[in-house]
Amino acid sequence: MSRMLRTPTTLVSDASSALAALRHEAPLVQCITNSVVTGFTANALLALGASPAMVDIPGEAGPFAGVSSGLLVNLGTPREEQRRAAREAVAAATIAGTPWVLDPVAVGSLPIRTALANNLVESRPTVLRGNASEVLAVAGLGEGGRGTDANVAVDATEGPASALARSMGGVVAVSGPVDLLTDGESVVRIANGTALLTKVTGGGCALGAVIAAFLPLSADPLTAVTAAVLTYTIAAEQAAADAAGPGSFAVAFLDALAAVHPTDIATHAKLHVVSASPRLVEA
Amino acid sequence: MSRMLRTPTTLVSDASSALAALRHEAPLVQCITNSVVTGFTANALLALGASPAMVDIPGEAGPFAGVSSGLLVNLGTPREEQRRAAREAVAAATIAGTPWVLDPVAVGSLPIRTALANNLVESRPTVLRGNASEVLAVAGLGEGGRGTDANVAVDATEGPASALARSMGGVVAVSGPVDLLTDGESVVRIANGTALLTKVTGGGCALGAVIAAFLPLSADPLTAVTAAVLTYTIAAEQAAADAAGPGSFAVAFLDALAAVHPTDIATHAKLHVVSASPRLVEA
Amino acid sequence: MSRMLRTPTTLVSDASSALAALRHEAPLVQCITNSVVTGFTANALLALGASPAMVDIPGEAGPFAGVSSGLLVNLGTPREEQRRAAREAVAAATIAGTPWVLDPVAVGSLPIRTALANNLVESRPTVLRGNASEVLAVAGLGEGGRGTDANVAVDATEGPASALARSMGGVVAVSGPVDLLTDGESVVRIANGTALLTKVTGGGCALGAVIAAFLPLSADPLTAVTAAVLTYTIAAEQAAADAAGPGSFAVAFLDALAAVHPTDIATHAKLHVVSASPRLVEA
Repeated sequence: MSRMLRTPTTLVSDASSALAALRHEAPLVQCITNSVVTGFTANALLALGASPAMVDIPGEAGPFAGVSSGLLVNLGTPREEQRRAAREAVAAATIAGTPWVLDPVAVGSLPIRTALANNLVESRPTVLRGNASEVLAVAGLGEGGRGTDANVAVDATEGPASALARSMGGVVAVSGPVDLLTDGESVVRIANGTALLTKVTGGGCALGAVIAAFLPLSADPLTAVTAAVLTYTIAAEQAAADAAGPGSFAVAFLDALAAVHPTDIATHAKLHVVSASPRLVEA
Repeated sequence: MSRMLRTPTTLVSDASSALAALRHEAPLVQCITNSVVTGFTANALLALGASPAMVDIPGEAGPFAGVSSGLLVNLGTPREEQRRAAREAVAAATIAGTPWVLDPVAVGSLPIRTALANNLVESRPTVLRGNASEVLAVAGLGEGGRGTDANVAVDATEGPASALARSMGGVVAVSGPVDLLTDGESVVRIANGTALLTKVTGGGCALGAVIAAFLPLSADPLTAVTAAVLTYTIAAEQAAADAAGPGSFAVAFLDALAAVHPTDIATHAKLHVVSASPRLVEA
Repeated sequence: MSRMLRTPTTLVSDASSALAALRHEAPLVQCITNSVVTGFTANALLALGASPAMVDIPGEAGPFAGVSSGLLVNLGTPREEQRRAAREAVAAATIAGTPWVLDPVAVGSLPIRTALANNLVESRPTVLRGNASEVLAVAGLGEGGRGTDANVAVDATEGPASALARSMGGVVAVSGPVDLLTDGESVVRIANGTALLTKVTGGGCALGAVIAAFLPLSADPLTAVTAAVLTYTIAAEQAAADAAGPGSFAVAFLDALAAVHPTDIATHAKLHVVSASPRLVEA
């Protein structure tokens, strides 16, 4: 499972192509997500051009994960029935080869979701997405944040995130003012985005769903996550330009997700790649 | 339970009157609906002038269905507790004569909701609402869509929808670019609406709630469904005129539901009625 | 636990200070709330400057209530698992001294939530918030409203609300065209607000969360509730000035919650205080 070290140029070019492919393919994205953000998440996927399906009950979550294009498992409000659905879906996704994203919301100090996250990560998610506190908690190096706050600098996660990515055989995506994405070989930093995303509930959670939408459309997970983060954060920048506050931002963001064009990715990407060692590749 | 064949003129006139009555009566609409669209559905009902009540737990759903003006049962995310609540509410609605709408979201391939839909349809919903795939699945003629997508042309459902309506003794409403409504005698086609409704989660689900709001205000279910679909899709057209994308459309749509006037129905309705046989009545 | 009789001047001044403190402290507000309004509630807290955490499952709700800044228990859609979480959280909040708000949505005629509300009120919530029907039902003097409607004039609740506040050792907040707040000694009336708040689902429920956000920042609960209601309703007035209907109002309201300034409180407050006896203090 060897991976090439990426260059910003090819990553951005592949991200643009992935967005065009998403609009054409309308991937079916199964979301097992928290009760706070289900509507916003479905609307973000619809706006982008994907097809959301919130199939999250036992008896249906598994069969559906076998046929969906991508799967999100978000642990924000993990009711007992949803926990069973998550385990069922992950097992079916593993058998079917459906790529999946684990978003371990507020993991660390809260016992139920922490146990579930530790259990699910053993099934090797294609992508683990969280803020710095959450990623460190999954890596066994922290106690997590309070709620969904990120109390830890993203840069402090580079080593643990890379090690975790290698052990998972997937990608770890750390959200923050600068997002850090790594497959354990390359470390991608993306400086796009706006603080308004932290003022809208689901600003992070919907990104997990968008990553799941890009996974089936890219040659490899790091490209898919890069495409998802660039599309999402560049649309957010466009929305922030028109926003008077968090309410109008959320509305403009959905409009921007529908309008953002593959060429916008190349024009606006603020991308930086180094090797995970870390040997500098390109600034 | 004989019904007259309808004419567009009387249907549109009755629809206008029903909207005026809804604003005056503020019917209490009980919604047992999916977790993705609860907020949007409640907001659509409030904007329109109805009074939403999301009473969806066992022990309360039944008693409330006995006193509510109308009931929606939507199977989008049918947790175990909600399935029990749905059966309890339908039983109580049947005894009390409360009109009710069944929206069998994504029925067909997903086993839990398909079994529940087949069970509930035996209790003869006043209205069955879905896209073409869902209606065919309930009619036993298809495997349903993937998620909430409609993969089947609405026109292909005319025969099965009419037969199903007759066997239910109610109305079947098939959503699509042109909506098809039938009580098994008349077939109403409504060409109002906008594709943006398919880009907002709950665009179809909230219509089910709006139908439930109109049911207690009309002489018969076909008039109520016609009034609901006309009001909903004409408001959507007005909203689309101002929208820059799906986010601003959803906002403008709630504003339009509050503003749409009974006279707008007569002015903008694009209605066509034939007999279910099908003998042409009026183009 | 003697309390001074408040004057409008000190209440408004303290409310302004509390808003400034909230922006600085970003209190962590745990919400156990209904499925209809979770997203809107979290967005209202984020816009205001608080940090929402919808931790509502057994096994996590209790531990979290021991460390959160404030807790909301809203009974709008009380699933079985959430009822257990509510009891667990209230027990932990009581031990830890975490202030908490009980919002007994639609209590009275619906048996499950009525029993739970009666049980929880024995644990002495810091604040009980509801419409007039709900407050009277908790006080044992009414059968509640239909759904979330308020069928009873707020003024009719002054005596029962004051008695209930004294027996709880807390504050009772009655929402209506004029809000009535009382700790059993002072009765505060606030005439700010807009009827558009009743046309957005969560317009009342999110206020409960905002009250929970202010509780840890004020010297006493009556000041906190006054600060919450003033901030909320003055922001709503500012939003209503720009709104074309309920959809655009909800968006503008989130923008206004982010923008409302402590000095706006002093400028726009419409406040009236009497003693609960009722001896007039100031008009």
